[in-house]
Amino acid sequence: MAALVARGARSAPGTDVRLKSVDEATSADILWCDGIAVGSPTYLGTLSWRMKRFWDGMQEELWGKIDGRIGCAFSSSGGWGGGAELSCLSMLIVLMNYGFLVFGVPDYVGKKMTLHYGSVVAGEPRTQEETASCERLGERLARWAALRTAAHAVGHNTL
Amino acid sequence: MAALVARGARSAPGTDVRLKSVDEATSADILWCDGIAVGSPTYLGTLSWRMKRFWDGMQEELWGKIDGRIGCAFSSSGGWGGGAELSCLSMLIVLMNYGFLVFGVPDYVGKKMTLHYGSVVAGEPRTQEETASCERLGERLARWAALRTAAHAVGHNTL
Amino acid sequence: MAALVARGARSAPGTDVRLKSVDEATSADILWCDGIAVGSPTYLGTLSWRMKRFWDGMQEELWGKIDGRIGCAFSSSGGWGGGAELSCLSMLIVLMNYGFLVFGVPDYVGKKMTLHYGSVVAGEPRTQEETASCERLGERLARWAALRTAAHAVGHNTL
Amino acid sequence: MAALVARGARSAPGTDVRLKSVDEATSADILWCDGIAVGSPTYLGTLSWRMKRFWDGMQEELWGKIDGRIGCAFSSSGGWGGGAELSCLSMLIVLMNYGFLVFGVPDYVGKKMTLHYGSVVAGEPRTQEETASCERLGERLARWAALRTAAHAVGHNTL
Repeated sequence: MAALVARGARSAPGTDVRLKSVDEATSADILWCDGIAVGSPTYLGTLSWRMKRFWDGMQEELWGKIDGRIGCAFSSSGGWGGGAELSCLSMLIVLMNYGFLVFGVPDYVGKKMTLHYGSVVAGEPRTQEETASCERLGERLARWAALRTAAHAVGHNTL
Repeated sequence: MAALVARGARSAPGTDVRLKSVDEATSADILWCDGIAVGSPTYLGTLSWRMKRFWDGMQEELWGKIDGRIGCAFSSSGGWGGGAELSCLSMLIVLMNYGFLVFGVPDYVGKKMTLHYGSVVAGEPRTQEETASCERLGERLARWAALRTAAHAVGHNTL
Repeated sequence: MAALVARGARSAPGTDVRLKSVDEATSADILWCDGIAVGSPTYLGTLSWRMKRFWDGMQEELWGKIDGRIGCAFSSSGGWGGGAELSCLSMLIVLMNYGFLVFGVPDYVGKKMTLHYGSVVAGEPRTQEETASCERLGERLARWAALRTAAHAVGHNTL
Repeated sequence: MAALVARGARSAPGTDVRLKSVDEATSADILWCDGIAVGSPTYLGTLSWRMKRFWDGMQEELWGKIDGRIGCAFSSSGGWGGGAELSCLSMLIVLMNYGFLVFGVPDYVGKKMTLHYGSVVAGEPRTQEETASCERLGERLARWAALRTAAHAVGHNTL
């Protein structure tokens, strides 16, 4: 899913993308970005402990320094009704706590497939709808992140 | 979905079921039951205003009188990722506020279909998995509600 | 609380504010604004049915027309632990469904008082901390909403 | 908070209580209990990574073996509005995923203090209301857990 989200974000002109696993990512990556898509397998309706450990461990370093950035989420569960939406919500809650502006996407990307609270998939993203869902999330992230760049260009102090 | 949940509950021996629309239901129905499955279309990731009006309006009459009953939720959205899980969650939150013990079902009822936070469907419940999801919710509700009956039989004061 | 949030927003230079009850507000108000703070009493851990009715009823008129606006929430409950945070969350979920970018505020506005998911108060906002919480929410909303204005000034298409 | 919850639970006649840190607890403790109160500091509006790691790691061992047990949550945050309710919710979501019946308490335990979704405190539990909140949670847990014992006494198969 992460690779598809990255592809979607790259499709927006002028967007630089870093694609990192939670084990590779550092606070410097978070400070660098205007926006982020955070993904986790759906474990028990919330983000995985590894992803939580990443954000728990960043509090001292990042608290108060990343307000106003843009955030969204994606998750894959074992099946529909398995908690993927709730896992996305848990990641949005983590991001909001850091001051991120978080979003979902109202669009339908295929028959009976949308991503109102982030991109969700049952198993691996194989169908066209599932692929489109991930890409759409990345595209939208790039668009909203560009709001910040544009605002900076006119001297807006975004914190 | 409601009819299927009711069918599932009725399949448990000794279970009486009332199947009511939110416009028909009264506080007497809530006081009568040991357990309830509350359903709503997924509107904006939360329960419909009609369903919310029902519970908002019952506070004076029911508050403090229905603690310890069993509750669960079901919802149908326009598509996967459309907020059905979150709508179920909103109904579970309403029920918890009244003191209900709420649950989801860990079981998978078909390929890539489960109901960890209530039964969720995209559109109408047509596939075998979707039908099974609703029925399983009703069966499980009947089982947990019977805990109360059994406890009453040995004089347990459940509030 | 709404009046305090409005005061906070007005304190940001160049910010026009409309302060409306849910019975007065119309779709034109939503289309007019760059950002919105939605408030509701905490009823059963979710937004009130009147507030839900407002947003449920706007779907046909507003769907797809207000993506990328900025949103936040506030709520007053009968007591701490009474569901005010969850009510804020329910409003953020509604707003996200429409495509809003939603936020909370990491800042502490007094001893043991913050607004990570929106401004929350037990009873009426009387203490200095509670007043400051509402005002801070409005200030922050004005700041993030101004991102859009700034981006528009350089021709950014925000949808 | 945990010690206070334990004290509340012990006050119910016939209740055996184990009080364990997440580092001490094992799957045997979970299998042993009829009900559990899970607590975590409020880190970013969700349970701590250590608590999540515990439950993530138990999936293979416990999945399908603990349905129908009773669960509740408690959390302490740095301040009101800091995510304690949401952290409780995240723990209830984890428990529901395992099949637990989860609950909050409608009662007010003091002026402006309740525990509708679990016991929440800002900082350490020092005031009488905060102490009472934790104890009440434990008492209620013991009561609902006893439903299972009573049902077992009359041969009810609770899974």
